[in-house]
Amino acid sequence: MPFVTIQLTREGTTPAGSALTADEKAALIKGSSELLRDVLGKPLDSTFVVIEEVDTDNWGWGGLPVLEFRRRRAADGIAAPSTPAGG
Amino acid sequence: MPFVTIQLTREGTTPAGSALTADEKAALIKGSSELLRDVLGKPLDSTFVVIEEVDTDNWGWGGLPVLEFRRRRAADGIAAPSTPAGG
Amino acid sequence: MPFVTIQLTREGTTPAGSALTADEKAALIKGSSELLRDVLGKPLDSTFVVIEEVDTDNWGWGGLPVLEFRRRRAADGIAAPSTPAGG
Amino acid sequence: MPFVTIQLTREGTTPAGSALTADEKAALIKGSSELLRDVLGKPLDSTFVVIEEVDTDNWGWGGLPVLEFRRRRAADGIAAPSTPAGG
Amino acid sequence: MPFVTIQLTREGTTPAGSALTADEKAALIKGSSELLRDVLGKPLDSTFVVIEEVDTDNWGWGGLPVLEFRRRRAADGIAAPSTPAGG
Amino acid sequence: MPFVTIQLTREGTTPAGSALTADEKAALIKGSSELLRDVLGKPLDSTFVVIEEVDTDNWGWGGLPVLEFRRRRAADGIAAPSTPAGG
Repeated sequence: MPFVTIQLTREGTTPAGSALTADEKAALIKGSSELLRDVLGKPLDSTFVVIEEVDTDNWGWGGLPVLEFRRRRAADGIAAPSTPAGG
Repeated sequence: MPFVTIQLTREGTTPAGSALTADEKAALIKGSSELLRDVLGKPLDSTFVVIEEVDTDNWGWGGLPVLEFRRRRAADGIAAPSTPAGG
Repeated sequence: MPFVTIQLTREGTTPAGSALTADEKAALIKGSSELLRDVLGKPLDSTFVVIEEVDTDNWGWGGLPVLEFRRRRAADGIAAPSTPAGG
Repeated sequence: MPFVTIQLTREGTTPAGSALTADEKAALIKGSSELLRDVLGKPLDSTFVVIEEVDTDNWGWGGLPVLEFRRRRAADGIAAPSTPAGG
Repeated sequence: MPFVTIQLTREGTTPAGSALTADEKAALIKGSSELLRDVLGKPLDSTFVVIEEVDTDNWGWGGLPVLEFRRRRAADGIAAPSTPAGG
Repeated sequence: MPFVTIQLTREGTTPAGSALTADEKAALIKGSSELLRDVLGKPLDSTFVVIEEVDTDNWGWGGLPVLEFRRRRAADGIAAPSTPAGG
């Protein structure tokens, strides 16, 4: 009966995208439910998953709204976590 | 000072509805606040209730987005939890 | 498939009690599940309920740990929400 | 690595506003991240903040949707927490 | 910067166990972090995972505390979700 | 009526401590309540704060339990976020 919540910023994984696609959401649901089954033997039917997409204005990191935080990191030459697909 | 969170899919309880009505939300707020008062003696004024409606694409059950899960259950002849009003 | 979370301070409803009793927890579970059934037609089997008991040191109200907040309210002659059973 | 969640009603702080401004959100993110740094020594970069704005229909207080609760409080002459900026 | 929360009952996966083992927890953390990386390209370092173990008294299903719900299901001959490892 | 949740690992801020002190918790409660008052005009009495301390085994970062993640970071010479007071 596990309940999995995945919170992340509302963004696409490509420059053209502005949100997760239905396929990406389905893959997160499938993967996390199978994880609970494989590690703990929980039947797929007993797991709920909720994906919470949060506007980038509403997500803070490093004391800043996340887009501003990424801009500063990029300006400082700090890598991966600040890329669109990465943070 | 209890804090009650009710998470559920954003759907109507009738074929025409696409979300909870204001009356349904008010009934959930009233009922859960009264429950805390009746069981634990908490004054109504000390309870907060938040209703979180989640898009059906973002809710998973059985390793699938919930609408797909219900379709498969219905095809298999499994009942109540997969009806629109029921899941 | 609703998911109900009830957060409240870890306290008894009587002077002798230091936590909710199993019966009180069962009543909260029953009542909130029946509420979802009565208001929205959700089958009992499709609702999960989680009760989160929080140490009083870890719950704040009015900018203070809740026990301190109640003491000050009581000293000011402000009633119900600060009684042991009530806040 | 703290994770701070701020849940509040989706409302402006002025009669003209219907939601938090980007500046207000940035100030909440900055302030809560600095709080964790000042009290516990957590580096700013290790704190995430999420602001969850909840429609007023979906927020309950006193057994009522919050706007109705405030109207009744105002009618009863009870002050601050029922003002637009205050609840 | 995703944040994954896994809520489940505090139980072992074997008759002798009364809680998740450290290895099981590590496998959940690894698997969910890798899922976010594989599906959305999120770097491992940008994902936080929290596992919340909930006492069985505090988890409700079907309007009952979960252990009672499983007992009734087992008595009715309903299978998997009510097994110790499964619910 | 804001509700602030602060999730963090259960650890002390000094080598001798194994959890937050009551004073540190009170400072977090005071600071976050005052932040909501100063930025949004919310009265102190209308804000609830909950501090959720999570066992280090139950907190993941970088695909690993957080203590293991910090050990590897320290071995790699990566600084602040992996210090006891810092992550």
